[in-house]
Amino acid sequence: MPPYLSGNLIIGQSGGATAVINASLVGAVQAALTDKHITGIYGMRHGIEGLLKEDLLDLRQQPSSLWPQLLETPSAALGSCRYKLKDHDLERTIDILRRYNVRFMLYIGGNDSADTAHRLAQAAQQQHYELSILSVPKTIDNDLPLTDHCPGYGSAARFIAQATIDSTLNTTSIPWHYPVKVIETMGRDAGWLTAAAALGKRSELDPPHLLLLPEQPFQQERFLTEIEAIYRRIGYVIIVAAETIRDEKGVALGAVGQTGVDAFQHPLLSGAAQYLVDLVKRELGLRARFDKPGDLQRMASANISLTDRDEAYRVGYNGVQALLEGANDKMVTLLRQPDDVYHCTTGLADLTAVANVQRLLPDTYLNAEKTMVTQAFYDYALPLIGSPLQQPARLEMTRIR
Amino acid sequence: MPPYLSGNLIIGQSGGATAVINASLVGAVQAALTDKHITGIYGMRHGIEGLLKEDLLDLRQQPSSLWPQLLETPSAALGSCRYKLKDHDLERTIDILRRYNVRFMLYIGGNDSADTAHRLAQAAQQQHYELSILSVPKTIDNDLPLTDHCPGYGSAARFIAQATIDSTLNTTSIPWHYPVKVIETMGRDAGWLTAAAALGKRSELDPPHLLLLPEQPFQQERFLTEIEAIYRRIGYVIIVAAETIRDEKGVALGAVGQTGVDAFQHPLLSGAAQYLVDLVKRELGLRARFDKPGDLQRMASANISLTDRDEAYRVGYNGVQALLEGANDKMVTLLRQPDDVYHCTTGLADLTAVANVQRLLPDTYLNAEKTMVTQAFYDYALPLIGSPLQQPARLEMTRIR
Repeated sequence: MPPYLSGNLIIGQSGGATAVINASLVGAVQAALTDKHITGIYGMRHGIEGLLKEDLLDLRQQPSSLWPQLLETPSAALGSCRYKLKDHDLERTIDILRRYNVRFMLYIGGNDSADTAHRLAQAAQQQHYELSILSVPKTIDNDLPLTDHCPGYGSAARFIAQATIDSTLNTTSIPWHYPVKVIETMGRDAGWLTAAAALGKRSELDPPHLLLLPEQPFQQERFLTEIEAIYRRIGYVIIVAAETIRDEKGVALGAVGQTGVDAFQHPLLSGAAQYLVDLVKRELGLRARFDKPGDLQRMASANISLTDRDEAYRVGYNGVQALLEGANDKMVTLLRQPDDVYHCTTGLADLTAVANVQRLLPDTYLNAEKTMVTQAFYDYALPLIGSPLQQPARLEMTRIR
Repeated sequence: MPPYLSGNLIIGQSGGATAVINASLVGAVQAALTDKHITGIYGMRHGIEGLLKEDLLDLRQQPSSLWPQLLETPSAALGSCRYKLKDHDLERTIDILRRYNVRFMLYIGGNDSADTAHRLAQAAQQQHYELSILSVPKTIDNDLPLTDHCPGYGSAARFIAQATIDSTLNTTSIPWHYPVKVIETMGRDAGWLTAAAALGKRSELDPPHLLLLPEQPFQQERFLTEIEAIYRRIGYVIIVAAETIRDEKGVALGAVGQTGVDAFQHPLLSGAAQYLVDLVKRELGLRARFDKPGDLQRMASANISLTDRDEAYRVGYNGVQALLEGANDKMVTLLRQPDDVYHCTTGLADLTAVANVQRLLPDTYLNAEKTMVTQAFYDYALPLIGSPLQQPARLEMTRIR
């Protein structure tokens, strides 16, 4: 299909960064560089905030050697934002886009960014300005609907799965020194990232032993009973807990460190792992400590999933192609094909069905107790983390007599 | 020099594990496998605790394919311990070694393990049992004296340096979202690991901006003044803090999470980063959060320094050779050679001069304020972390007008 308009393309990155969000930028730029209907290729500094300030970079004026390097650089090279567009911003934003003759816009982000893209698409239509806007999915939380998964998740999942294997090796070297360990993960309201900690688990006794998912209310007595039972059976306990877990009244365990809400009214939390460690010490008398990888799980350059990076590149590249084919007010999606070998193609979903909708971890991926994942989850998630995880070699336990 | 005795060799791993402590085990086993004066090659399960229980593995009965795999496996494959030998254990330990005709012992560990090795060497002499014992250095804390550095440090230093680069990318993508970040490191009383966070820093404005070293008493007012000044100048602040930092009265900032002392009377702490984050929020009104990589900094399989692993292998290998040449009651050391290209040979130091001695970060590696490292530290530590760190690629800031 021929392009229905030509003009400048603008690209923005928004929300929490990932290890591969730059791959989507590189894919988009490389698609645009080879198309003659796109004149200028602009980058918003810090997403929509930069657009409102007219703080725009010329992406044609970059050395060609930069793009392959950027493909390997975590985080958002354009800068990101967490700004929620106000109603009075909409008209001004369209005015700016008109003034710069921007006819194509690609906005790389999560749920909130999809909302921004959708509102801008509507505003352009109301103002009779011909503009095509697509959202490109990106989030370690993997909580966007209508896409098989979200670029950024595979790398964060790989980090958490490998971290769980590696960090457990410290516990198993002397299980009685610190028999209980909590590893705290991100993921907002969805348990995708917490569940990923189990991707290196190969048997029931393998860690992690218990997942505390944000979808499941935390039940203190049941938790303590389970920890004690696992400890008696195995001699140590590895717990992976979402930083956002809440008790049955909906109060976040980490509320002790709560500092308010962000521009999208999401609470800002810290402290779930510390709470659990203190609880285990106090109630069970077991020594416990925690790892809180924090922003490392978004950003670890040494744990990038190459599958994830390739897909991040493709949603950016194909996003620009879809814009040129006339797509508007949609999000690029990943569609898993029923091939023997894992393979995704890209598609498009309406932004109205995406914006501000969270896809939580479905029950089919969880056991009856909702404390561990099922085989269906492994089938879903293992292809996303790329090459196999590094499993420890073990000595044969051939005793001297 | 010909061996002065022959018999069985026993190997143990002790203390906190590292990402390369198995490389020392593999080096030792491979040296022993090729020597005809060593008959049995035994492994203690969980160090001296396993020896006391006669829980010993036959390291000759392992598939040869295991050793190259173990070389890449973090943590102590034999299991580790943190048991302080009691006086009444000494005679029994020597009795056990005599009964198993163990004539050579290699104990891979840190300060406390050197103490164990030294006391056993003395006890064997008192009991007229011909036994040669060497300690092989291992600690992420890098705090053993008389060796240029300790195997295990290079990999942990690499992890922390790369983590500081990577995690900062999340802050710089939206500096105003969480302008202050604390990264908490291990290292006990010595600042080597905290200092390593600066190994990716290339200019004054680069992160980290402030190191809180365990050797320097924490001064709250000064700290807050510095954070505010850096924030005003750069717009964000990356602090790397040892989990063991103490205030001017010697009270650990993390004492809130204190759970007692271990068998060597080292305090068990948690919470320094949480304390600092709360302090910054409360006193400066700046949003702050922390990463606590915890055991990941010991164990991350994806951040192993190949230089570190090679050296860990060599201290194990050369340790067995030194035992066969009659060395006793000593620790294998790494000696940096004054070559143009970084190179270490191995040597030996008396255990009396090593056991329970901590080497702290010297003032020559610190600026006048003792908040950042000097060029001398880069010259010392950069060769230890192996291949160059992954630095982010950056867009050219060519603005659209």
